[in-house]
Amino acid sequence: MALSEFALIDRYFKHIGPRLDSTLVGIGDDCAVLRPPADPLLLVTTDTLVENIHFLASVDPESLGHKTLAVNLSDLAAMGATPKWVTLALTLPEVNESWIEAFTRGFSALAERYRVQLIGGDMTQGPLSITVQALGTGSDERILYRSAARPGDRIFLTGTIGDAGLALKYLKDRNERCSRALLDRLERPQPRIEAGQLIGGLASACIDISDGFAADLGHVLDASNAGATVDWNLIPLSAPVRQYVEQSGDSRLPLCAGDDYELCFTVPEAREEELIRRIATLPYPCQRIGTIDQRPGLRIENRVPGLDLTTSGFEHFS
Amino acid sequence: MALSEFALIDRYFKHIGPRLDSTLVGIGDDCAVLRPPADPLLLVTTDTLVENIHFLASVDPESLGHKTLAVNLSDLAAMGATPKWVTLALTLPEVNESWIEAFTRGFSALAERYRVQLIGGDMTQGPLSITVQALGTGSDERILYRSAARPGDRIFLTGTIGDAGLALKYLKDRNERCSRALLDRLERPQPRIEAGQLIGGLASACIDISDGFAADLGHVLDASNAGATVDWNLIPLSAPVRQYVEQSGDSRLPLCAGDDYELCFTVPEAREEELIRRIATLPYPCQRIGTIDQRPGLRIENRVPGLDLTTSGFEHFS
Repeated sequence: MALSEFALIDRYFKHIGPRLDSTLVGIGDDCAVLRPPADPLLLVTTDTLVENIHFLASVDPESLGHKTLAVNLSDLAAMGATPKWVTLALTLPEVNESWIEAFTRGFSALAERYRVQLIGGDMTQGPLSITVQALGTGSDERILYRSAARPGDRIFLTGTIGDAGLALKYLKDRNERCSRALLDRLERPQPRIEAGQLIGGLASACIDISDGFAADLGHVLDASNAGATVDWNLIPLSAPVRQYVEQSGDSRLPLCAGDDYELCFTVPEAREEELIRRIATLPYPCQRIGTIDQRPGLRIENRVPGLDLTTSGFEHFS
Repeated sequence: MALSEFALIDRYFKHIGPRLDSTLVGIGDDCAVLRPPADPLLLVTTDTLVENIHFLASVDPESLGHKTLAVNLSDLAAMGATPKWVTLALTLPEVNESWIEAFTRGFSALAERYRVQLIGGDMTQGPLSITVQALGTGSDERILYRSAARPGDRIFLTGTIGDAGLALKYLKDRNERCSRALLDRLERPQPRIEAGQLIGGLASACIDISDGFAADLGHVLDASNAGATVDWNLIPLSAPVRQYVEQSGDSRLPLCAGDDYELCFTVPEAREEELIRRIATLPYPCQRIGTIDQRPGLRIENRVPGLDLTTSGFEHFS
């Protein structure tokens, strides 16, 4: 693999994303060399996807390329950052050029969309695994931490939840109800970059829903030393998930399944009106679902029958 | 693995390296948040180590923790950068706490030594594989590119080469000549951070020897559109490698084996004297081995019998 590695890099990896003015050297030296722009803060995140753990071996490589980048951009979105640069460490069992072509096509399309440049990486031989690191910039006033939710803050959620979990369930069960649109929610999640940037400076805390709504809101509550009450009737669900919950009685799926990559954020009551005006411009729904309380734990009000939760909530749902 | 992951992170990963003032948030939010110091440039590199490809399954985990960080710091050293922050993506087949304890001990000792803070990462389940990304800072005047070697420049090399290659050969052959000191050259390479920083502003080009001396000097020659003549008699070899070459006649090993992580750099003739004064303070040897030419290719002069190279050199040694 050693020699063809350089040719593959030249052909498929060297020109992914825009050529940013702030990138003095991208791929090709021992390090990438960047001149960070005026924003004073640098944000860094990394996520690994491993075959048979994070994705099925049968996954379309173009979707995998998209998702690998998307899950990292989602972490930048959750901090209200502007994505700038990424590196890609790709471990492949063999050199399959058509796989690489499709993978980089998916990766590249998303990189172009959010003007993120691939500036370095590593290609190694081994069991299929992909680690991306994403770098972004931001300012002190606009960065959103998990720990900043306060009692009385309103809780908002972008998009709908449970779709990725339902798609995975249908895939595993070989259930033919799994439409292309539903599958895309699992395989091609959309990082909510626009929402993260719109709410910066207004929202208090924010997180992206990767481990599941209850677990991730739980991280915010833990970090903020607070609790929350959420109204089940306000939680946005897509038609397939709503139908699934009504037929099965399984309301845990939308609350606990992961991989949705929606943003859950909080906003002080005094800023709620301005926030609602701003988010009206988003191309996806974003709605209020509950309130931050002093009392620890997550409480779901008006929950449907069959939801197997103690009243103290999800905080110890191990 | 999902739940114990957080406990493991708290215990073993949260406090690796110094707590830098420039780190506003390290491990624990969606991203690390950094306020880069006054140095205007940011340097980024990433390297993956995969079991059975980059290390044997039998490797001591403490050494593996050291090496994983060392190979990334070596890339920063080769650019003359100051290492600051790292992320660690660790894929483990199972949670073995004593393995994690030893791995992080090795990683942590090197991080402390060079004042590098672990600011984030990901822990996933799967075949053993480790990806580190290292971030450093530097200034325009001191950063060393591969492409800046010019005809007449002197070529220097830190330390000795071939040791890691010989250790690997002895390990594979179960040859009892493999001393602890020789094995350390393979399993605990020392990134030449001090050398990279000392020569910044004086040297023209620099690279670290990871693929092998001939291949890596070849990368400098390609990027600089130049050639080189190196004197075999000036190439620094350790006693075991010298003995091996004399007994076997195999002089390819020191020239072509990888994993030494020494620095090879070039310096204009006019700055050679000042450079020699500066490098005298280094705690390891650093000596002149040849000269950059206009004529493409790498030529080894005074080479010992048995060195199977064409006179045009290594540039096409596939």
